[in-house]
Amino acid sequence: MNTKTREDKVKNLSILGSTGSIGVNALKVARAHPERYRVLALSAGKNIALLQNQIEAFKPKAVAVLNESLATDLKKALTGNNLPEILFGPEGFKHLATMDEIDTIISAITGAAGLMPTYEGIRAGKEIALANKETMVMAGPLVLREAEKQGISILPIDSEHSAIFQSLQGHQKEDVKRIILTASGGPFRNLSLKEMGQVTAAQALKHPNWEMGPKITIDSATMMNKGLEIIEAKWLFDLPIEQIDVLIHPQSIVHSMVEYRDGSVISQMGIPDMMIPISYALSYPRHIKTGLPPLELTKVGPLNFEKPDLTRFKCLALALKAASAGGSMPAVLNGANEIAVDAFLKEKIGFLDIPKLIEQTMTAHKTHPIDQIDSVMDADKWARERTTANLIEY
Amino acid sequence: MNTKTREDKVKNLSILGSTGSIGVNALKVARAHPERYRVLALSAGKNIALLQNQIEAFKPKAVAVLNESLATDLKKALTGNNLPEILFGPEGFKHLATMDEIDTIISAITGAAGLMPTYEGIRAGKEIALANKETMVMAGPLVLREAEKQGISILPIDSEHSAIFQSLQGHQKEDVKRIILTASGGPFRNLSLKEMGQVTAAQALKHPNWEMGPKITIDSATMMNKGLEIIEAKWLFDLPIEQIDVLIHPQSIVHSMVEYRDGSVISQMGIPDMMIPISYALSYPRHIKTGLPPLELTKVGPLNFEKPDLTRFKCLALALKAASAGGSMPAVLNGANEIAVDAFLKEKIGFLDIPKLIEQTMTAHKTHPIDQIDSVMDADKWARERTTANLIEY
Repeated sequence: MNTKTREDKVKNLSILGSTGSIGVNALKVARAHPERYRVLALSAGKNIALLQNQIEAFKPKAVAVLNESLATDLKKALTGNNLPEILFGPEGFKHLATMDEIDTIISAITGAAGLMPTYEGIRAGKEIALANKETMVMAGPLVLREAEKQGISILPIDSEHSAIFQSLQGHQKEDVKRIILTASGGPFRNLSLKEMGQVTAAQALKHPNWEMGPKITIDSATMMNKGLEIIEAKWLFDLPIEQIDVLIHPQSIVHSMVEYRDGSVISQMGIPDMMIPISYALSYPRHIKTGLPPLELTKVGPLNFEKPDLTRFKCLALALKAASAGGSMPAVLNGANEIAVDAFLKEKIGFLDIPKLIEQTMTAHKTHPIDQIDSVMDADKWARERTTANLIEY
Repeated sequence: MNTKTREDKVKNLSILGSTGSIGVNALKVARAHPERYRVLALSAGKNIALLQNQIEAFKPKAVAVLNESLATDLKKALTGNNLPEILFGPEGFKHLATMDEIDTIISAITGAAGLMPTYEGIRAGKEIALANKETMVMAGPLVLREAEKQGISILPIDSEHSAIFQSLQGHQKEDVKRIILTASGGPFRNLSLKEMGQVTAAQALKHPNWEMGPKITIDSATMMNKGLEIIEAKWLFDLPIEQIDVLIHPQSIVHSMVEYRDGSVISQMGIPDMMIPISYALSYPRHIKTGLPPLELTKVGPLNFEKPDLTRFKCLALALKAASAGGSMPAVLNGANEIAVDAFLKEKIGFLDIPKLIEQTMTAHKTHPIDQIDSVMDADKWARERTTANLIEY
């Protein structure tokens, strides 16, 4: 009989999105604990140079990149023995998510592109450490149904969801009154609507607390990020939207909270470093050493909390609307947002055009139920095409 | 874990110290949930008038007061049928702690007087909801030994210890880096030593956040309260003093925290109302409705944290010293403090004489091991006599 507990066993990881901010931090966690984690697969979009470094450092068995030409470039760049199998495109990502030896997938591809490989990983019975919030936003009920069928866990990596997950441990869901997601409020927290109309992409990319990729940093500035997190939380924690609140907390120290029926509020705090939630998702239910400096509450300054303003942060209001509509609407919200944020980053539209464009697309959409993953992908595609078409007016 | 107290069964409570601040709040909790709690026994010191009201409202089977003459007064005051058995003195309290039908004792007598009945309750196999910190400060190892022998749980009621207890649920003790007790810092947090020398008892009795009895309010102003809590935490959570820190948090919203090895800090927050920790100790592991207003983080103002100043708050330094010395020294610290606080309340000594007197007594004491409850009571008695004798110099 194997007396090794699950915890003693080395976990074989597949990191989908290894060159992004989450991927890089996940590799730091893996590097700090070679006795616990082995990186078997890595995938990147286009950042071949960084992926090459990661391959040299971690010697994975397989890697995947966005397309064939990047795969060819990567093959040329790599030298030496023990080279990984090099794959590309959707089939490549699928392979990385379903390889036999993999125990846990770190789902960290940005945006809607992360949904399919994550879903395929779940169907293959892999444990999921989830950073890609679109998986839940777009296809929550389908993903949960499949996870239940396979008997696998989905552990959150988002700092807010990790905080809630940690604050729920040892307490009972029936006793939860509400969960409170905190939001930094982004760089434009105190701007008027008029001032917001003038901000540039460069200004929006300066997040006060977190180092993140460009898409999520803009989502943080519009607060769409919090909107998507509300929808993600609804599915992850099986709670109605009415039991999910948001508070602006500019210091990003209290990562989120759970209020219980007796008035107790349990929260998780920490320095704003993604190694903490990534590490917890991988070592759950244990907390293992990250080597990070401790949170020093005497140095981070006073902690403030404010109500979010849904008039100025229209994206948050739109996300709540999409959450209430349910079905295909959250996927439409998300698809439209990706197109709008991309257009803003390319300076084709202004900051306040982001919610305008999304609303146009949502208004044009007739919500339908999502009973299979294809109908989710169709809604996403429809939203992208529609939003792209509307872009011409801007 | 006591298998007698199943969740679906009504819990029979004995409230030791029912007319104090904890007792009154415990009765509010019991009154809100008659389907869960039945108050079978009440005990008071001298407040016969309030006890009489409580008897009329809760119809306990037995009550106890400080002495025979008070018992006689109470007997005369009570009229009607179904009158409780009226007991008095140490034997009376012992009876209340050991009655057959009792499931849980709420140990809320102030000061060293709470130790013996609590200890007797443990020996009788009762679950303990512990507000009397002296039980742990004076006799921690003996109390734990007895609790283990009887297989009973000791659940904390102190807001700080409840916060830590709640923040430990679902996480593992091996992963704890340190626990952080928060302290309001009391009314004299920002005074210089010179200014502290002039404060009156009336000023010291004005606690900024909590409504408590006079002894604990003075302990809060000297920060001896936090010192005693450190010693209590050491035993309750089985941690060395080096893993217990204190932070001043003037708003008393974050009731305490647990820092884990990965950098995660779990905390419990709430409005400063003792009903919350009392309710949790009684309903553990559930959180049940208290009817209290929710914590509104947007209204309580910014949350601040500071390091405590051991030069100005000498009592805290003395408590740390007593904790390191171990054995009989914490009981001596506590006994000396009770005499000194009493003298300060009676305006016989100044505020800064409190630590001076305690230090004199501690210096004169030769620490000895405590292997039975009598040696604890002897150390307490010795400390009181010695401190009382030293009072003459003031």
